[in-house]
Amino acid sequence: MVQGFKFAAVAAGIKKTGGLDLALMVAEAPVAAAGVYTTNRVKAAPVLVCRQRLRRGMAQAILVNSGNANAATGPEGLADARQTTKAAAELLKVPEGLVLPASTGVIGLPLPVAKFTDALPELVARLHPGGLPEVARAILTTDTRPKEAFFKGTVAGREVTLAGVAKGAGMIHPDLATLLCFIFTDAAVTPGVLKTLLRQALPLSFNRITVDGDTSTNDVILLMASGRAGNSLLKENGPAMAALGEGLTQVMSDLARQVVADGEGARRLYRVAVKGAASPAEAVKAARTVATSPLVKTAMTGADVNWGRIMAALGRSGARFNPEKVEISFGDRLVVKNGQGLGAAAEAAAQKIILSGPFTVHIHLHHGNFSDYYDTCDLTEEYIQINASYRS
Amino acid sequence: MVQGFKFAAVAAGIKKTGGLDLALMVAEAPVAAAGVYTTNRVKAAPVLVCRQRLRRGMAQAILVNSGNANAATGPEGLADARQTTKAAAELLKVPEGLVLPASTGVIGLPLPVAKFTDALPELVARLHPGGLPEVARAILTTDTRPKEAFFKGTVAGREVTLAGVAKGAGMIHPDLATLLCFIFTDAAVTPGVLKTLLRQALPLSFNRITVDGDTSTNDVILLMASGRAGNSLLKENGPAMAALGEGLTQVMSDLARQVVADGEGARRLYRVAVKGAASPAEAVKAARTVATSPLVKTAMTGADVNWGRIMAALGRSGARFNPEKVEISFGDRLVVKNGQGLGAAAEAAAQKIILSGPFTVHIHLHHGNFSDYYDTCDLTEEYIQINASYRS
Repeated sequence: MVQGFKFAAVAAGIKKTGGLDLALMVAEAPVAAAGVYTTNRVKAAPVLVCRQRLRRGMAQAILVNSGNANAATGPEGLADARQTTKAAAELLKVPEGLVLPASTGVIGLPLPVAKFTDALPELVARLHPGGLPEVARAILTTDTRPKEAFFKGTVAGREVTLAGVAKGAGMIHPDLATLLCFIFTDAAVTPGVLKTLLRQALPLSFNRITVDGDTSTNDVILLMASGRAGNSLLKENGPAMAALGEGLTQVMSDLARQVVADGEGARRLYRVAVKGAASPAEAVKAARTVATSPLVKTAMTGADVNWGRIMAALGRSGARFNPEKVEISFGDRLVVKNGQGLGAAAEAAAQKIILSGPFTVHIHLHHGNFSDYYDTCDLTEEYIQINASYRS
Repeated sequence: MVQGFKFAAVAAGIKKTGGLDLALMVAEAPVAAAGVYTTNRVKAAPVLVCRQRLRRGMAQAILVNSGNANAATGPEGLADARQTTKAAAELLKVPEGLVLPASTGVIGLPLPVAKFTDALPELVARLHPGGLPEVARAILTTDTRPKEAFFKGTVAGREVTLAGVAKGAGMIHPDLATLLCFIFTDAAVTPGVLKTLLRQALPLSFNRITVDGDTSTNDVILLMASGRAGNSLLKENGPAMAALGEGLTQVMSDLARQVVADGEGARRLYRVAVKGAASPAEAVKAARTVATSPLVKTAMTGADVNWGRIMAALGRSGARFNPEKVEISFGDRLVVKNGQGLGAAAEAAAQKIILSGPFTVHIHLHHGNFSDYYDTCDLTEEYIQINASYRS
């Protein structure tokens, strides 16, 4: 439990499968809040409203639904996002501008506003400090399990707690309406510091995962800080800010890994770690290109140590390197040295690494000093089945 | 038949499945020739040798094998490519530097040179003017059918013939060792004009197809012109060059479409045609991003008119547009206007278009005057099965 927040979820009938689909997260008072949003040019209505309302870095509640993304819904979609959050604001007796909307689900259908307003009184009545796990369940769509992460640590001499929930990553899930992540802390932080911390944690967590390379119109990560831990307000760079940042990075990278592991149809989770790149940008490009290659993914599906596909993906990544210097290992098993395969015995040993659970593909480009990584998963027949029949 | 060339293929035992796997294409004399090669930084040995030997725009023979890509094979791979073409040159009694190597198949294994030298005498003995269809079969790997295209037309007052063969597109096939295309004409053309024509035809054919977004280390397109049609030598821009260029574009776009239609596991062939883009680069980016999106592909697999995924792919493409102005049609059935769906009846009509065979997804961005397209195919469970087990 994170001091200063209450949570609840109900089944409002928005998801066609039934089950929890509407959730509320409420702070006792207006608190510091920060958000990051999809870079997709097509942004869902709740993302646009959220971004506008969070300009001053303060919020008091988040209203989220699954089953309908409220994306590509035009001016009516914006009106619906405002109307549903207004109804929640009235019941909560907080200013409308402090309630943030979020949605995930099918795109292009009007938001069923009446289902929201019908369910809101019960939702508000159920708010309680221990309700975050219900929220984790209510935001799921094609995810198979809820995703939560926690951190406890000392910040500026006080015990501080962070708790977060997430669903399907922006590059994993169907119908674009994908990554949602909500994180709560009792630390006392200014809105400016909160935003900085959130942005710093991104390249170490959600910006380093991929499943299918598609990005969503609805991606949003929101962070609220109640200040109830009683630490002196964090307002500038220093050890206390670093300590909270580390906790936040832990929670976010934990959630990001859970999201990849639960990728549609995923059976194998692996990390592509690149070193020896000539620049930071080339390190991330090389890691991303290998991590998103359908041919590398399907090789992993078949537990095939097909390093040739990795070489080819590196070759089209845009990273500079000399193919005859490349080294590739699976875990601690070297399979390519000086750009050439080490043979069947090395590959057999590497195959055992693939079969034994989450693993890392290490790539050394020997062309500089920069490194980066991406977490990804294999591509299976089940991914096709899920996505070919998602709306039917 | 194209005057001035002979062809043959044999089963040399390079492909583990047996069947034709070694082919030879020979001109009566040294002729004008041009090539375009993979942009992948990792280039297979035969590509490197080919590029170097074609610098002066003359060649006399092409020696191609399937079953082994001779890629990621280091200095030994280069020596093997030179040794096998040298053996062919000696039997053909032509200068070694005029024989071009090409390979496709598994990457990272040494080229079985002895199988080449053993089979070459029979291969040379079998050369005959009508042998191009055998070549079309010998270059296949996971392709399910041979791909040939022809053109006859009048160039500078003479009847001119073009004939081409191809296999699996650079972005379709496994193990990178993918697109090969060989085209022959009896037109009389300078090497410079031949290269210009080849480059002009690319953006209208092979550079507009995709299956899985992966690019190969072995892609090569070679064009040879025997001059036997007897037309006055084409050496500069003009109507005769345009006429030949049109024939070449026809042959290459025909082959490119055949390659997509035979994409691994592909059941549906479709074109993504974008108009109203603000620049030529944005038109092609928008078309390419929609054509390569796994979520759009799997929607097509399920015959699901999931225009929301198309909107989301457009949104991450980098093309500028106002989401509320976008129009999307399947064939002549409009499903999105002003960025919003037109409902179930429109989608049902569009679904019939998907189910009735090759179709076009028309996208109007209403943000400028530029258009472009990509040919692509759906993504099926069979693609996964083929690529998860390719080497086993």
